[in-house]
Amino acid sequence: MTIFSVWAPKAESVAVRVDGREIPMKRCDVEGSGQNADIEVCDGRGWWHAEAEDAGPGTDYAFVLDGGKPLPDPRSPWQPQGVHGHSRLIDPTAFAWTDERWRGGPLAPAIIYELHIGTFTREGTFESAISRLDHLLDLGITHVELMPVNEFPGDRGWGYDGVDLYAPHHAYGGPEGLWRLVDACHTRGLAVILDVVYNHLGPDGNYLSQFGPYFTSHYTTLWGDAVNFDGPGSDEVRRFFIDNALMWLRDYHIDALRLDAIHAIVDTSAVHFLEELAGEVKALSIDLGRPLALIAEDNRNDPRPARSPEAGGYGLDAQWSDDFHHALHTLLTGEEKGYYSDYGSWADLAKALERIFVYQGHRYSRNRDRRFGRPTTGLPGYRFVGCIQNHDQIGNRAQGDRLGNLVSTGLLKIAAALLLTGPQLPLLFQGEEWAASSPFLYFTDHQDRDLAQAVRDGRRKEFAGFGWDPEQIPDPQAAETFNRSKLDWAEREREPHATLLQWYRQLIRLRRSNLALLDGELDRVRVTYASRESWLILARRHIRVICNLADAVQQIHVGASRPPRILLSSDDRATCNGHSACLPPESVLILEVPF
Amino acid sequence: MTIFSVWAPKAESVAVRVDGREIPMKRCDVEGSGQNADIEVCDGRGWWHAEAEDAGPGTDYAFVLDGGKPLPDPRSPWQPQGVHGHSRLIDPTAFAWTDERWRGGPLAPAIIYELHIGTFTREGTFESAISRLDHLLDLGITHVELMPVNEFPGDRGWGYDGVDLYAPHHAYGGPEGLWRLVDACHTRGLAVILDVVYNHLGPDGNYLSQFGPYFTSHYTTLWGDAVNFDGPGSDEVRRFFIDNALMWLRDYHIDALRLDAIHAIVDTSAVHFLEELAGEVKALSIDLGRPLALIAEDNRNDPRPARSPEAGGYGLDAQWSDDFHHALHTLLTGEEKGYYSDYGSWADLAKALERIFVYQGHRYSRNRDRRFGRPTTGLPGYRFVGCIQNHDQIGNRAQGDRLGNLVSTGLLKIAAALLLTGPQLPLLFQGEEWAASSPFLYFTDHQDRDLAQAVRDGRRKEFAGFGWDPEQIPDPQAAETFNRSKLDWAEREREPHATLLQWYRQLIRLRRSNLALLDGELDRVRVTYASRESWLILARRHIRVICNLADAVQQIHVGASRPPRILLSSDDRATCNGHSACLPPESVLILEVPF
Repeated sequence: MTIFSVWAPKAESVAVRVDGREIPMKRCDVEGSGQNADIEVCDGRGWWHAEAEDAGPGTDYAFVLDGGKPLPDPRSPWQPQGVHGHSRLIDPTAFAWTDERWRGGPLAPAIIYELHIGTFTREGTFESAISRLDHLLDLGITHVELMPVNEFPGDRGWGYDGVDLYAPHHAYGGPEGLWRLVDACHTRGLAVILDVVYNHLGPDGNYLSQFGPYFTSHYTTLWGDAVNFDGPGSDEVRRFFIDNALMWLRDYHIDALRLDAIHAIVDTSAVHFLEELAGEVKALSIDLGRPLALIAEDNRNDPRPARSPEAGGYGLDAQWSDDFHHALHTLLTGEEKGYYSDYGSWADLAKALERIFVYQGHRYSRNRDRRFGRPTTGLPGYRFVGCIQNHDQIGNRAQGDRLGNLVSTGLLKIAAALLLTGPQLPLLFQGEEWAASSPFLYFTDHQDRDLAQAVRDGRRKEFAGFGWDPEQIPDPQAAETFNRSKLDWAEREREPHATLLQWYRQLIRLRRSNLALLDGELDRVRVTYASRESWLILARRHIRVICNLADAVQQIHVGASRPPRILLSSDDRATCNGHSACLPPESVLILEVPF
Repeated sequence: MTIFSVWAPKAESVAVRVDGREIPMKRCDVEGSGQNADIEVCDGRGWWHAEAEDAGPGTDYAFVLDGGKPLPDPRSPWQPQGVHGHSRLIDPTAFAWTDERWRGGPLAPAIIYELHIGTFTREGTFESAISRLDHLLDLGITHVELMPVNEFPGDRGWGYDGVDLYAPHHAYGGPEGLWRLVDACHTRGLAVILDVVYNHLGPDGNYLSQFGPYFTSHYTTLWGDAVNFDGPGSDEVRRFFIDNALMWLRDYHIDALRLDAIHAIVDTSAVHFLEELAGEVKALSIDLGRPLALIAEDNRNDPRPARSPEAGGYGLDAQWSDDFHHALHTLLTGEEKGYYSDYGSWADLAKALERIFVYQGHRYSRNRDRRFGRPTTGLPGYRFVGCIQNHDQIGNRAQGDRLGNLVSTGLLKIAAALLLTGPQLPLLFQGEEWAASSPFLYFTDHQDRDLAQAVRDGRRKEFAGFGWDPEQIPDPQAAETFNRSKLDWAEREREPHATLLQWYRQLIRLRRSNLALLDGELDRVRVTYASRESWLILARRHIRVICNLADAVQQIHVGASRPPRILLSSDDRATCNGHSACLPPESVLILEVPF
């Protein structure tokens, strides 16, 4: 026996269709929502319920509102036929977990590895990803971050246009596949971060508006009407997203959620949705007896998400900051289009390393045509996630080219060194560790022909603005675009990939074994540089990361009284006598100076 | 010689029209905005400048953008011909102030009196208001709060559809009139609060969009597109409002601003506009050497505005809260339509007195169809402004009827007692102190015929929803509607007005002389009540406010060991022997109990 439930406050009648027959649902009219579970389920604000004797795990079903066409459950746990198909019941407790000894991985010393299930392996499934986990372990990764895995239209996609937020994607292997992957991570000591999108839903297969006021025309985002987090009916909308978060953490043993683009979550109510979410996740963490974390992506340079509620924050565990990426990328590549126009100086890179945010509210941004941000005062470095590559920075380029396609191996090694010795939590993007030759392109698999064409045209138009010939822009809808984005695992054994991979391994080992690099106090991060000579030294307590970005040998003043210990060197010819270091072109030397 | 300046970032050409001739303006192209005033004036982000030899105070001018029709200055200091006319230069330092001994009035012990210049006196001007200041002094008022005085369309209006935010209204007496009124207040020891509207501009005479991106379609408010506080170009838009605030405080010696409906100010950037504004006002306060305050109207039950920036707040001095009003009004009148449907119990009134917010985030509001608010934890009572009547609560009723038209004099006296012994800063609305017989209706004077009809129809439609016959709704455009709303000063000498006026005087004197009533600590505010018997006791340290709302004599348990001192009584027949008090029907007794 199964009790079906759905929130549809405006509907006059609701039925659930199971095995070809329709069972009318009943709207409960009890007022208020008390502590008692029975009353909670049965409150009078738009929930409908029906019992079905024969239904159980494996049963397909759909909801019929006011006699309309059958719709998938907004909280569908599985969409084996895709976003337009029937929903299928699962037993969320059915999986035989073997991770009972897993106690969760702390975030402060994390090394995060972002991967996309569809392109991480040739097969593109949860199951096949398991076979590559030992590579990540060997590399020194502590946290695997999965790009969105919920059901999105078609068989291929980044996942940010998901519409069935509770259902692991059918093409990746559905609920069973995800359970197995997380279990495999945990038994190897790897934590799992899942990317979830609470700021919008995809345009195709999004039936939510037929059920209730999930969206509001009061605010618009890049993707249209905003999610209704603060208008009439928003209690249940907030519940929809909070319950989703709790489900991943509880039923799929996920350790942390990466909240996509929270700057597009507009909520002007007294308790911001994310503060409420953080409170509920904290309670679940206590209940489950393992640490759970929330990490936000936010482009506003506002430290509020990571601040505590007592300080007016949302109480999240960490937030992304792109300033380090942008400052370093512009310096290495000389690129200056789009948002890169706001960066490009050595001072910016130094500020990003020392203060996380380059834009802190005082400087005008040409790209945004306004000032933005505020200082990170008081927050430790490990409240911020940084990277030198990620799915967006690569994939939002016309050709999806990685940093390895743009700069020399020497500069790539310097970038990796700054990432992995810097104060932010380092995030690597799949294949970055060996400078994978495969691009990471933008790909979709929209079944709606108009939408498919709109995505194609939009992509062409976007890059026409950057001077690209539309013909050169890969077609997001082509299977080829997807397939080209898959990693070539064989190449990592070959040069120059193998050397770079070894460099990443060394850097990660250094970070994980050296407390000075895990120190969160930003006041102890010091950067000196000479822009004309193109060198920079990052100091973290007794560690010095000496970078020579010039294509000439350079003597760089170090100023230690005695010869320091060399911890790592990207080029064997580099030396240091204490007073100064001698670095070959485009190389980096990591020292421990005597106290 | 005058330098004209205007921000018009998208214009190709700008000219200023002075005395019938057009002087072309020059756009400066210096990049960046430094500390240096010359560079500030001459930055490259859309400011235009022109010198005019003969122009000076009294000169009329207008701006011509791209050869279009002459437009008033967005920062016009005076619009003698109304919102569509030319702007007129003034000398902001010309007035001979006599308030040099004024040091500002502290907010914590304030008694605020809200008035509307157009209806406060028969003449409806700043000048005529001066003649009534002695009445306010005699009443015990400390702060006069002026409803918006900036230029709005026509000669009559509430002022919330203002469009020339820098110009005192021509019908009220323009800049000179306001200077004289503020000076007269200060020389009498009265502080002045000015109501300013930064959440929208009126629909008529609003030329701002022709000058720059003052509005954004990303967010909508009740009044259409929201003000652009966080999008491209918003630095200058924020400047426009901040400079306006600073102008009133500096050039017109205003002591505090009441910020209208800040819940309609949508700003998702890292530093909220109001936090930035508060910082600048604090700096000006130090500079001027007198206290300046900011008071927000906010309907979200969010204490953030009044919290310090360190606690994630905006750092304002106080904020309005309607819960006390709504809880008391519903209890006294039994009304339950619209937002009154959310209130009505004795418990609500007790909570409003003890905790300011009845809605603190946990309770579902039927009117809003969601939960709202959060606790005021840690904030003192004087960070909140409360009332039993104000322009909105009266004027947004179909007939603009005051509380005096709805309940008995006995109940009116109880309401006044709770207002003036409660923890919030008390605000009175003009004429409330004598239960003025004049209504306060909604009136406008739109010159645009379509707009006038839309306002008329809108008003009728709104109240049709509450069961009113459209014919009974006063026409907002009729001069009669305005004139009926003017106070009749003679009536205050007559009964029952004179008695009530005396009661208000006594209550205000009691509040101002009694530290227990000015105590901000909400943990020391205690309310007990018996809903069936209709009595309530408000305890504030050693003060007891004993209210008998029943229409019968009641013995109410007080529980003091010795006979208390009677401080005030609304009915001479009330007695108290310490153990209990005996109160006539609909009366209130204020006691000081022995320690």
